[in-house]
Amino acid sequence: MLNFTYCNPTKIVFGKGAIAKINELIISDAKVLLTYGGGSIKKNGVYRQVKAALKKRMVVEFGGIEPNPAYETLVKAVRLGRKKKIDFILAVGGGSVLDGSKFIAAAIPYKNKNLWEIVAKRGQTVKSAVPLGTVLTLPATGSEMNAFGVISKLSTAEKLAFGSPLCYPKFSILDPQTTYSLDKKQLRNGIVDAFVHVAEQYATIDVSTPLQDRYAESIFKTLIDIAPAVMSPVRNGPPFAAVGHHKCPVSNGMSGKKNYDIRATFMWTATQALCGLLSCGVIGDWSTHGIGHEITAFFGLAHAETLAVVLPALWKYEINNKAGKLAMLAQNVWGVKKGTKKQKAAAAIKRTVEFFNSLDMPTSLKDYNITGKDIEKVVDRFARRGVSFGENGDIDAKAVRKILKLCL
Amino acid sequence: MLNFTYCNPTKIVFGKGAIAKINELIISDAKVLLTYGGGSIKKNGVYRQVKAALKKRMVVEFGGIEPNPAYETLVKAVRLGRKKKIDFILAVGGGSVLDGSKFIAAAIPYKNKNLWEIVAKRGQTVKSAVPLGTVLTLPATGSEMNAFGVISKLSTAEKLAFGSPLCYPKFSILDPQTTYSLDKKQLRNGIVDAFVHVAEQYATIDVSTPLQDRYAESIFKTLIDIAPAVMSPVRNGPPFAAVGHHKCPVSNGMSGKKNYDIRATFMWTATQALCGLLSCGVIGDWSTHGIGHEITAFFGLAHAETLAVVLPALWKYEINNKAGKLAMLAQNVWGVKKGTKKQKAAAAIKRTVEFFNSLDMPTSLKDYNITGKDIEKVVDRFARRGVSFGENGDIDAKAVRKILKLCL
Repeated sequence: MLNFTYCNPTKIVFGKGAIAKINELIISDAKVLLTYGGGSIKKNGVYRQVKAALKKRMVVEFGGIEPNPAYETLVKAVRLGRKKKIDFILAVGGGSVLDGSKFIAAAIPYKNKNLWEIVAKRGQTVKSAVPLGTVLTLPATGSEMNAFGVISKLSTAEKLAFGSPLCYPKFSILDPQTTYSLDKKQLRNGIVDAFVHVAEQYATIDVSTPLQDRYAESIFKTLIDIAPAVMSPVRNGPPFAAVGHHKCPVSNGMSGKKNYDIRATFMWTATQALCGLLSCGVIGDWSTHGIGHEITAFFGLAHAETLAVVLPALWKYEINNKAGKLAMLAQNVWGVKKGTKKQKAAAAIKRTVEFFNSLDMPTSLKDYNITGKDIEKVVDRFARRGVSFGENGDIDAKAVRKILKLCL
Repeated sequence: MLNFTYCNPTKIVFGKGAIAKINELIISDAKVLLTYGGGSIKKNGVYRQVKAALKKRMVVEFGGIEPNPAYETLVKAVRLGRKKKIDFILAVGGGSVLDGSKFIAAAIPYKNKNLWEIVAKRGQTVKSAVPLGTVLTLPATGSEMNAFGVISKLSTAEKLAFGSPLCYPKFSILDPQTTYSLDKKQLRNGIVDAFVHVAEQYATIDVSTPLQDRYAESIFKTLIDIAPAVMSPVRNGPPFAAVGHHKCPVSNGMSGKKNYDIRATFMWTATQALCGLLSCGVIGDWSTHGIGHEITAFFGLAHAETLAVVLPALWKYEINNKAGKLAMLAQNVWGVKKGTKKQKAAAAIKRTVEFFNSLDMPTSLKDYNITGKDIEKVVDRFARRGVSFGENGDIDAKAVRKILKLCL
């Protein structure tokens, strides 16, 4: 196990009716910047609940934060927040709203004029931040319980991650009922996003972390178990679908349970997938995310769509380096008991692709009409940046080309 | 899943050489009350490392905090801390030193004269606390990453738990090398303590928490896997002993690994067993602890010794209520695939007893020469208190008598 430091101070308030607790979590005379996305929260009742919980506090609203939140949009919120002298940010929405609000929180008190520096320097220049609370409505990114955000700059087609301990939300409200209005694509993307977060922290070098490995497998198995039920309609959804990994011998704990428990499990599992716990003492990979961000930046695919394409290709490219952990994945998660280490590793890739496809999630760039010529844009960017990714630091521009060819 | 609030702000600094980081974690002009136990830290080099890391800070020492820390001892430390106007407490040792130091931290600024009130009122009257950091040397209680302490009052033979969010350590240093000087009994007790912490949060009512259940099973399995290696001598210890649950198909991650990784896994697993994570959305039991504390108070058994005796008896007594979860334990942790739900539940109890016994841990009160007459003292105390324990609130004095008879 590697040396590590772990500290996650975010307070999670989880459950039915949790939004009303906002009133106890923000000081009563706070001037609140309320951030949100395209307005779905006004249709599903979340906005109404949030406003009611904020009572008589001064509220400045900033809506319209888009998926893959744009620097160009966020600087407008920074200007508004500074002008109104807000002293608390309440982000209501999915990962994009939360990520964007972390940037706003860090940018409002930022001394230098060039706010993009916060992102370009990966958050290391952040010296203070406006306190932030969140109301999560889309289980996927884990942003509600971590210190990271991913921001896009439209003018240069860049998409980069930043992070600072100052950007941990002070609290995050997770009411699984807020997920009832999500559509199939949002749910599918959330499942894949959480799955790949775990993969980036598990399918790497084995440094003797059996507990962390089992935690990761716990999340994989839970996501696989609940996926069919998560993807089913809410009102008359089927009972919790166990695939046998964790079936209680006589009375499966989830059988007969319907929407609420399924969504609650989905929400908590996605949060756990990227709250820092799985990374304790572990070497991360994160090259799927690095490559995926560029595909979003150039071609506009949703974040999870890029991950579903890149992960299997990266695993094929790295099959020798990752064989041990991929074989463990095959055995402990997918139940593959026979074959050599390499055969099991190949089975893990195949089963992962089948799982993504079972959610109607494409796993090839062809599905998005992206060709071998297009991928050179991405390769070129990595070549110019000169950075290498992955747990062995061996994913350079040349490797990216080979991986992207396997995505076609 | 039940509604829950989760917030654990303790910073964990884990790994080789972590003690030196104390210097970065405590302000440079702090007046530090350094608390410890019987002096083993002076023999194994930990005291020297701690003193070196504290540099030129003013340090007031209070040694001699005993196992099952006594109120009568701790009030002396409170007096000393008040007199010397200390503003930070650094607790170095195992769970008893840490628990006792939490009491000292809460008691120094306590307004009322009767300090026992802090414990008697379960921590609910704590309004402030001196900041506390810890250096853990004995993986077992989880006190390094939770807000609880258990304090004994010798004058009345009481042993009670208290807790307050103000008692979370600001930081805890976990260097697995500090465990090398532990003896077999301390290691055995640590393994059993962590195991029972998980049991209290797992073998209860199933409220549809598959991720939390899998996390719990991850800890059970890891403890079972590493136990033989943890119990082996350090210098030429055997490779990490996997019992097949998590054996990597080709290259088991732990094979060939020796002392450090085994102890690192043990240390992190014991911390995880009682950091609040497993309790999220779950109904706890805690009657084994409630009964066990009284056995320690009256008969002087070590905490873990009481747990190993009471848990199997409680499970036998509650086998109908707990059959679902115990059968899951048998299947998912012990690999019991055949039998009815009740047969599997019985197998889980049998395997747990065998596991404890494999660590040379007794599971009967007879082993401590405690008789059927003696147990009436414990029953009588519960009768006078009139409280009921357990996830169903049905463990009253009468039930305690029946359970204790099963312990004989």
